[in-house]
Amino acid sequence: MISKISFKNDYSEGAHPKILELLIQSNLQQEAGYGEDNLSTNAKKFIKCHIENTEAEVHFVAGGTQANLLVIGHLLKPYESVIAADTGHIEVHETGAIENTGHKINVIRNDEGKITVKGIESILKIHTDNHMVKPAMVYLSQSTELGSIYSKTELTEISNFCRTKNLKLFIDGARLAMALTSTHNDVSLSDLARLTDVFYIGATKNGGLLGEAIVFNNPKLADGFSYYLKQKGALMAKGRLLGAQFYALFEDQLFFELGKHANIMATKLAYALKERGYKFAINPVSNQIFPILPIEKTEELLKKYEFYIWEQLEYNQAIVRLVTSWATKESEIDQFISDLD
Amino acid sequence: MISKISFKNDYSEGAHPKILELLIQSNLQQEAGYGEDNLSTNAKKFIKCHIENTEAEVHFVAGGTQANLLVIGHLLKPYESVIAADTGHIEVHETGAIENTGHKINVIRNDEGKITVKGIESILKIHTDNHMVKPAMVYLSQSTELGSIYSKTELTEISNFCRTKNLKLFIDGARLAMALTSTHNDVSLSDLARLTDVFYIGATKNGGLLGEAIVFNNPKLADGFSYYLKQKGALMAKGRLLGAQFYALFEDQLFFELGKHANIMATKLAYALKERGYKFAINPVSNQIFPILPIEKTEELLKKYEFYIWEQLEYNQAIVRLVTSWATKESEIDQFISDLD
Amino acid sequence: MISKISFKNDYSEGAHPKILELLIQSNLQQEAGYGEDNLSTNAKKFIKCHIENTEAEVHFVAGGTQANLLVIGHLLKPYESVIAADTGHIEVHETGAIENTGHKINVIRNDEGKITVKGIESILKIHTDNHMVKPAMVYLSQSTELGSIYSKTELTEISNFCRTKNLKLFIDGARLAMALTSTHNDVSLSDLARLTDVFYIGATKNGGLLGEAIVFNNPKLADGFSYYLKQKGALMAKGRLLGAQFYALFEDQLFFELGKHANIMATKLAYALKERGYKFAINPVSNQIFPILPIEKTEELLKKYEFYIWEQLEYNQAIVRLVTSWATKESEIDQFISDLD
Amino acid sequence: MISKISFKNDYSEGAHPKILELLIQSNLQQEAGYGEDNLSTNAKKFIKCHIENTEAEVHFVAGGTQANLLVIGHLLKPYESVIAADTGHIEVHETGAIENTGHKINVIRNDEGKITVKGIESILKIHTDNHMVKPAMVYLSQSTELGSIYSKTELTEISNFCRTKNLKLFIDGARLAMALTSTHNDVSLSDLARLTDVFYIGATKNGGLLGEAIVFNNPKLADGFSYYLKQKGALMAKGRLLGAQFYALFEDQLFFELGKHANIMATKLAYALKERGYKFAINPVSNQIFPILPIEKTEELLKKYEFYIWEQLEYNQAIVRLVTSWATKESEIDQFISDLD
Repeated sequence: MISKISFKNDYSEGAHPKILELLIQSNLQQEAGYGEDNLSTNAKKFIKCHIENTEAEVHFVAGGTQANLLVIGHLLKPYESVIAADTGHIEVHETGAIENTGHKINVIRNDEGKITVKGIESILKIHTDNHMVKPAMVYLSQSTELGSIYSKTELTEISNFCRTKNLKLFIDGARLAMALTSTHNDVSLSDLARLTDVFYIGATKNGGLLGEAIVFNNPKLADGFSYYLKQKGALMAKGRLLGAQFYALFEDQLFFELGKHANIMATKLAYALKERGYKFAINPVSNQIFPILPIEKTEELLKKYEFYIWEQLEYNQAIVRLVTSWATKESEIDQFISDLD
Repeated sequence: MISKISFKNDYSEGAHPKILELLIQSNLQQEAGYGEDNLSTNAKKFIKCHIENTEAEVHFVAGGTQANLLVIGHLLKPYESVIAADTGHIEVHETGAIENTGHKINVIRNDEGKITVKGIESILKIHTDNHMVKPAMVYLSQSTELGSIYSKTELTEISNFCRTKNLKLFIDGARLAMALTSTHNDVSLSDLARLTDVFYIGATKNGGLLGEAIVFNNPKLADGFSYYLKQKGALMAKGRLLGAQFYALFEDQLFFELGKHANIMATKLAYALKERGYKFAINPVSNQIFPILPIEKTEELLKKYEFYIWEQLEYNQAIVRLVTSWATKESEIDQFISDLD
Repeated sequence: MISKISFKNDYSEGAHPKILELLIQSNLQQEAGYGEDNLSTNAKKFIKCHIENTEAEVHFVAGGTQANLLVIGHLLKPYESVIAADTGHIEVHETGAIENTGHKINVIRNDEGKITVKGIESILKIHTDNHMVKPAMVYLSQSTELGSIYSKTELTEISNFCRTKNLKLFIDGARLAMALTSTHNDVSLSDLARLTDVFYIGATKNGGLLGEAIVFNNPKLADGFSYYLKQKGALMAKGRLLGAQFYALFEDQLFFELGKHANIMATKLAYALKERGYKFAINPVSNQIFPILPIEKTEELLKKYEFYIWEQLEYNQAIVRLVTSWATKESEIDQFISDLD
Repeated sequence: MISKISFKNDYSEGAHPKILELLIQSNLQQEAGYGEDNLSTNAKKFIKCHIENTEAEVHFVAGGTQANLLVIGHLLKPYESVIAADTGHIEVHETGAIENTGHKINVIRNDEGKITVKGIESILKIHTDNHMVKPAMVYLSQSTELGSIYSKTELTEISNFCRTKNLKLFIDGARLAMALTSTHNDVSLSDLARLTDVFYIGATKNGGLLGEAIVFNNPKLADGFSYYLKQKGALMAKGRLLGAQFYALFEDQLFFELGKHANIMATKLAYALKERGYKFAINPVSNQIFPILPIEKTEELLKKYEFYIWEQLEYNQAIVRLVTSWATKESEIDQFISDLD
């Protein structure tokens, strides 16, 4: 138990009560294992309905690193590589999980956490023969690791380019709910599905106990994936546990409501910081915000709150990261704001 | 939802209510991620207390295949192999998970699901130079995939031999609860810990929603393991979910009570089958039993119950596998028995 | 330098003089690297001519284990397995090279070193779901590790079966020369090419300094293989070295002449042993023969000759392995025969 | 056969005649396989004598990518990474060979192809927990991929730092001969051995047909390496072929003489270019030089010579790479120089 209020991340709390209720209700029913249970079966239907693609193939796994290594390891041949931002989760925070599946990541410089067609092109240009890996996939996160989001125009450009160049487009949606419900967003869930080859929808950071739903928009790309899931230790015996998360989130609009709540809490915080004249390292548009604060103020706040100092700056300033979640209470935000003065 | 009563496996139901209660109670408390939460911390203490080794290092993971590939991949060098029974879970039912980490399994013929020093020796004898893999670990399951259990004498012999030959001994305890609470058992949990280098304790098949607790009796063997966990996608963000399983099971004796219940249900079934003159392919001592039934009787039972036909035999006979669980109701056993006549 | 005459293997001597001459002749000519040199280019043409398939794609690598791991790692998806005899080189003598590429070997019992459709079928029958690997390739050696050879009928049966079941057929031809020139052989090089998806032609054991020529009969299967070669460290900078081996062997009939010589030497040895009443563990048809000798006689011979004791038998007998090569002198055979008396 | 004179690389010609002579002399002698032959045994002794460390363990392999992946894959645990320059061969030109062994490369910006303690420190500083790989090795090339060389002071600083931080230091010596014989060099072969944990000595680019000699200065680091060699397909059956290269190069001073020749040829070229007022992208000190030429002049030269355009620059200029070798004739240099005017 944490004694201070935490803005460290969006997975500090348990699960939305509806999920726990589903688990309790169905608890003693005997169900088929390995994702063949009723909750999983229905949850997959709900998701395919939300993305408007009944042909899609959906698989539930426990976490984001697992989802990333499974998708990338499954779709690439040994000598193929994946292109990602230097801030990409697979590059920075997965202990070499992708390399452990045998694949190189071709890194491009991020712009507020995002990549562009120009960056992708620069990688293709220098990878021309069999002494270098063969780029075959583009990975990006929506929202990004820096809280920014891609616009529909940006995603469409990247998607079109990838199709021209025979690159698969894979979107890490660990925080997809917050991207889709940002007031700055113009991309729908079905747009996103249409523009990518494969993506996943995060529950862990949006009110689930665990779980990411991997969506292959083209089911042919999922050929044999159920074998790979098992081989990598990712096939859960009691698949109902994963099914319950996505059943609850996608039976109706809960997934979007929870993401929206996290965003509203962050927006309130951002507004209060701006009002007090604080600048941001990255324009705040979702539930991760990066204000620049004096170190003195930071240290004072750290006595009552938990959050990360992202980067030390000159002149006794620091970029800090504040993250809100589906469970953040408005009273906590208000308290933090009052402590700013 | 399954309409028939299932004796297919021991993971058809959800979790023991105490686990769900723990999740509900702690649900909105903010906790540190990645296994640093209070439930996990305490659950590890409970386990170390039960095995009487406060020096041990414990890690929680989601499932059995994951536990197996993590331990084996972590402890072996690339060219080292693991010795296992031809019926071993890693050999038969993990989609090549061990080979996917780069390691060969040296297979020895099982005797009622078990291996012996003689079998291990036969592998060592033929692996003599660098044109062959270097056997470096012995893997066995307690209880075995055929429901049998190793006696203290058998385990001690294997353990002593492994120490002499510098082989690590790793026990797959997916069904450890049923082994430890079998009326045929003479091995305590602390015996088992003392005799092995590393083992794991299964919750998935004994009343948990998920979870296996990997125990390194010698903490030096766990050096760097937390990195490997993350790299393989096995480090859960909301570690509290795993912590809750083992907290509930090991705070007191629940783990043993649940295993015992599964065994009592199986014993009742076995007794009734014996009374009716049926033979067993393997002597029934835990919650998996393998009676030999006429195919006609089998087909009749399959109309009302789910279970696996293990092997077709001559003379219209078949070995079937019946599995009971922590949640099997005595009324279901009684009904099945009455349907035998 | 070995002081005794060795019948231990067929790679104890250097290379046929024609190969060394080619190296000397072309030595100071500047050539393109990585297999784009003239010798390699022409050698590939010669081979495609010999197999009567100008569409084939040929790659030269240094050795047999390398060829095996490259072909299998290239053609299989992570969860796919290869079926092989329990005596197969990949199973027994490659230090887990195949498993190190992530793939399981499904082993079937050999019959004089060979496998049959029935054996392959027995593996397919039990691999039915995603909890087990997916068999996708059949591996066999021609000649086998026990010196036997497949007849055209046997190979055709296996080939047809593989095509029906969508299994790739891969033949390890480390000792292909001796198979093709055995007096018991009825398979031509072009038959073999036609019946397989991919195979390789060994030079190391047939008069080359090194080298195996991997032949993809269907060039589509070779897509990306040049990348994989480089990634696995198998792309030689001075490809001319490999080119020279196969240029010399396939410019005309040298490959066949050398294999024939090795067989003739072995046949003479086998005949002499039979004349003296010795039995064979395996019917001798190529350059590896396995007579059964009294241990006393064996020990006497080991004072003057090098060879392997393959297996100790009862009644003071032993199976020994005698191997002849392209460079074995008839005088050495005669001497050995005279020492039998 | 190349019709133009090539300055593309240092592996366009065959081998120094002494190597071919050794192969011919010993050709029909029967030798033990897999590196146990006389040539290999003696060549290893010669090398240990040259580095002044009789305790070292030496292994011969075919090529540089193979040497790199073997050493790195052998010495790192799965979650450990290797630090290298962004121009490092393992990062740029090995088709992801290192990642294929499962390891991430942590890239630092090069300074004329070299890395510094400051760069290594910057990587260590940000790798602080189990969500990131664990840097455990530093890789550098001597001479570098840009033809520059590390001074004794620079290497000593890096070596000392690595020892303090428990990082292994591994030097890629594909072009070690040219580094050691540069007129700018102050590092002896025994210095280099003393300052590293493991390094290799290239023959491929210095007059051998193939071959790199991997030297473990501390033999304990080589434990099990012979198994790994075999597993990765790198153990050559006719080890005599590799032995002959290093026997010829290290029986006396041939290795150094050949490197020196390549350097002298490059120096003559560089001097002539400087005389004509051309600048260099990198200060020329070994056998790879990078003059900046007008594109017009470059195109004219490309009609008669082969070399790489390294980078297009503004104002119709280009960096070109000219490489000389042990076999470059002075007449070719003279001709090129005369064509400069």
